[in-house]
Amino acid sequence: MPHSPARPLHQLEAWQAAALLARRELSATDLVRACLDRIAEREPEVQAFVQLAADAALVRARELDAGAVRGLLHGLPFGVKDLFDSFDLPTGYGSPIYAGQQPVADAAAVALCREAGAMLLGKTVTTELANMFPGATRNPHSPQHTPGGSSSGSAAAVADAMLPLALGTQTAGSLIRPAAFCGVVGYKPSHNRVPKAGVKSLSETLDTVGGFARSVRDVALLGAVLTGDARLADPAAFEQATAPRIGWCQTPEWAQADADTQQAWAQAEKSLAGQGQPLILPDSLSGLVALQKAVQAFETARSLSHERLHHRQQLSTPLQALIADGLAISGQTHAQNLQATARARQQAQALFVDCDVILAPSSIGEAPAGLDGTGDPLFCRSWTLLGLPCVHLPFARGRKGLPVGLQLVGASGDDHRLLAAAHWVHQRLAG
Amino acid sequence: MPHSPARPLHQLEAWQAAALLARRELSATDLVRACLDRIAEREPEVQAFVQLAADAALVRARELDAGAVRGLLHGLPFGVKDLFDSFDLPTGYGSPIYAGQQPVADAAAVALCREAGAMLLGKTVTTELANMFPGATRNPHSPQHTPGGSSSGSAAAVADAMLPLALGTQTAGSLIRPAAFCGVVGYKPSHNRVPKAGVKSLSETLDTVGGFARSVRDVALLGAVLTGDARLADPAAFEQATAPRIGWCQTPEWAQADADTQQAWAQAEKSLAGQGQPLILPDSLSGLVALQKAVQAFETARSLSHERLHHRQQLSTPLQALIADGLAISGQTHAQNLQATARARQQAQALFVDCDVILAPSSIGEAPAGLDGTGDPLFCRSWTLLGLPCVHLPFARGRKGLPVGLQLVGASGDDHRLLAAAHWVHQRLAG
Repeated sequence: MPHSPARPLHQLEAWQAAALLARRELSATDLVRACLDRIAEREPEVQAFVQLAADAALVRARELDAGAVRGLLHGLPFGVKDLFDSFDLPTGYGSPIYAGQQPVADAAAVALCREAGAMLLGKTVTTELANMFPGATRNPHSPQHTPGGSSSGSAAAVADAMLPLALGTQTAGSLIRPAAFCGVVGYKPSHNRVPKAGVKSLSETLDTVGGFARSVRDVALLGAVLTGDARLADPAAFEQATAPRIGWCQTPEWAQADADTQQAWAQAEKSLAGQGQPLILPDSLSGLVALQKAVQAFETARSLSHERLHHRQQLSTPLQALIADGLAISGQTHAQNLQATARARQQAQALFVDCDVILAPSSIGEAPAGLDGTGDPLFCRSWTLLGLPCVHLPFARGRKGLPVGLQLVGASGDDHRLLAAAHWVHQRLAG
Repeated sequence: MPHSPARPLHQLEAWQAAALLARRELSATDLVRACLDRIAEREPEVQAFVQLAADAALVRARELDAGAVRGLLHGLPFGVKDLFDSFDLPTGYGSPIYAGQQPVADAAAVALCREAGAMLLGKTVTTELANMFPGATRNPHSPQHTPGGSSSGSAAAVADAMLPLALGTQTAGSLIRPAAFCGVVGYKPSHNRVPKAGVKSLSETLDTVGGFARSVRDVALLGAVLTGDARLADPAAFEQATAPRIGWCQTPEWAQADADTQQAWAQAEKSLAGQGQPLILPDSLSGLVALQKAVQAFETARSLSHERLHHRQQLSTPLQALIADGLAISGQTHAQNLQATARARQQAQALFVDCDVILAPSSIGEAPAGLDGTGDPLFCRSWTLLGLPCVHLPFARGRKGLPVGLQLVGASGDDHRLLAAAHWVHQRLAG
């Protein structure tokens, strides 16, 4: 008997839809159609997609409906940031240099999602080469505001219920910041837990593949497929999650958080009263923001060597400036910066002796007005440098009525504990 | 006045040729022609190349001869393992799946070499997807023997004086092993010192870009370009190099070293008498070979997801077996393996308290007979897992008259110190 859900199909959370699909109480075809209807309605305003694959997804949906249940994402449509290669859709990396490029193979993360039964519904807008220069996407909550970046289209499409799941990447704040601005859950796994094969490379030390969904359980389901760690998809881990010891870390950048983030913090203190204690980063972990910027600039300038040597005129002014910053850093200084990064990652382990997870700001505040930038990744840089897993939790509104939230940070490799804790915390914050 | 070298141009070391080129005592055109003559003579037997770019290299050589000195590699021809993308030559990754693929951009390492004034003379043979299944290349010292792999063509071409410099990669032992079997200097930099953008990705945790040349100063020159660290190209660092404190580390795998490697070890003990003391790895660093194998198998199986899902029939039997091994490892176990890797990398720092560099075996012995395999990377696995920089030093001959040598291993990030020490040590060993 077909399922008759209380809310429209396109608004279902991924894990709920996956359960219905696995029991054959919902068909992949109906779910894809619902998403396509939503896209037809909203895409002209939001502009989350570079390219749709509606027909191919419907064909695939019918195959999935007719065959065996394939895996954890059986029958779920997903979107992919146009920084990931796809064998059946062009991949432009958000740059005119790569307009119309057709890769021969899927990025590993894309192939893993398809293997688990998901259907690629489209490539989503990335900023130019996953850097600062924005794409066309608008914030679904207010089209005059940025959705954040660089994973702009993935965050906006999921926030606007055009898709239940989408892939993105983070080098500074490209998953957590758009998740915060669009009001969805964003998940940056521990560094190098998810394969980066087939994703345009900017910085070996920082680049991390992750994704977006509308609940913690949803990003955990996606994470289980991406990492191969079945603990992330274990329902018991969420149903039996207990109160984590929270380290409340305003970070050394707290003075730059605006009234909206401060208000979200105060709201969290009320909702989570008594859970954990303040955490002040030790002196040995000072200066991480500047260190992250230097590592990113040096590595990006060298990773994009072909582009800067052959296509300089097709690079935006801000990206040219970042590359110039990177080229001004000597290889000797970078070697010292990599040593400092390794030391900081080592010292960060001690943060989790007295707490299970760290609660910290995700962004300065609501999405800034205007579409000429994607906001500041300030509050994400340190955690990315440390390689720690992060989950953005949306739960509040700012003065303009746009989404605001906070991020939860886990110990390196402890993604399963972080996600269970994030589920518990998010229920209290959003409840 | 044109230089009249004592030995044929194609046998010049890269740093010597670079000095002559910079002073305009040698033309890039003459050097390329000399390499092309040598290739014409030897390539039918050695089969180091997938594709030559003779005409393009000659055009570029004339441009370089007519213009300003471009950089550290001005006028030097170089070869590139066919695992690196090149915008002007097809890139096949040693697999029928990618036969004839034409990338739109250069891999970052290739672009950096060209920026420094080097001319791409050809793509060199890699084993299938840089794994175990061999390509056509033969050992230049004896065509019935393997050159090693996976960077087979790069090592063979440099050993046979077809090229002064060539790029390769190492995930287990793919730089050091072919360097040992072919009798050239091989350099694996510290993990993630060199950008991997545009190189087919197999294992984030292990993949490392490096190269081959015929002297330590040559690989250091190449390393200076790849890492951007000018200390590696500082002549004073080599001319004034002093005796390093050597940690003599036979490794827990020593029982598997054959009589040829044992003999090379004894020869080194004579040549370097009194330098340093024995080093026994602590118990905390036991089991690294098995750990490296597990990390490589898990990550390769997932990085090659597109290939295993869409082109299984085009994968060799050994690669299918490796992928099956990787898929049999759970994501939870891999998370523990990554934690163990991080701990081991941390503990490896203590190895360099009482010594500056570690001397260790590079291979079990001489190149094995036959072309159906590329030999065992056993003695390279641990150092790759630890992310430490390594330099293979050729200096002896085995019972079959084929090259044998040892590798020198440095502290993470200390590539400049390792290379200076390697220069000092190599002079004593080979002198």
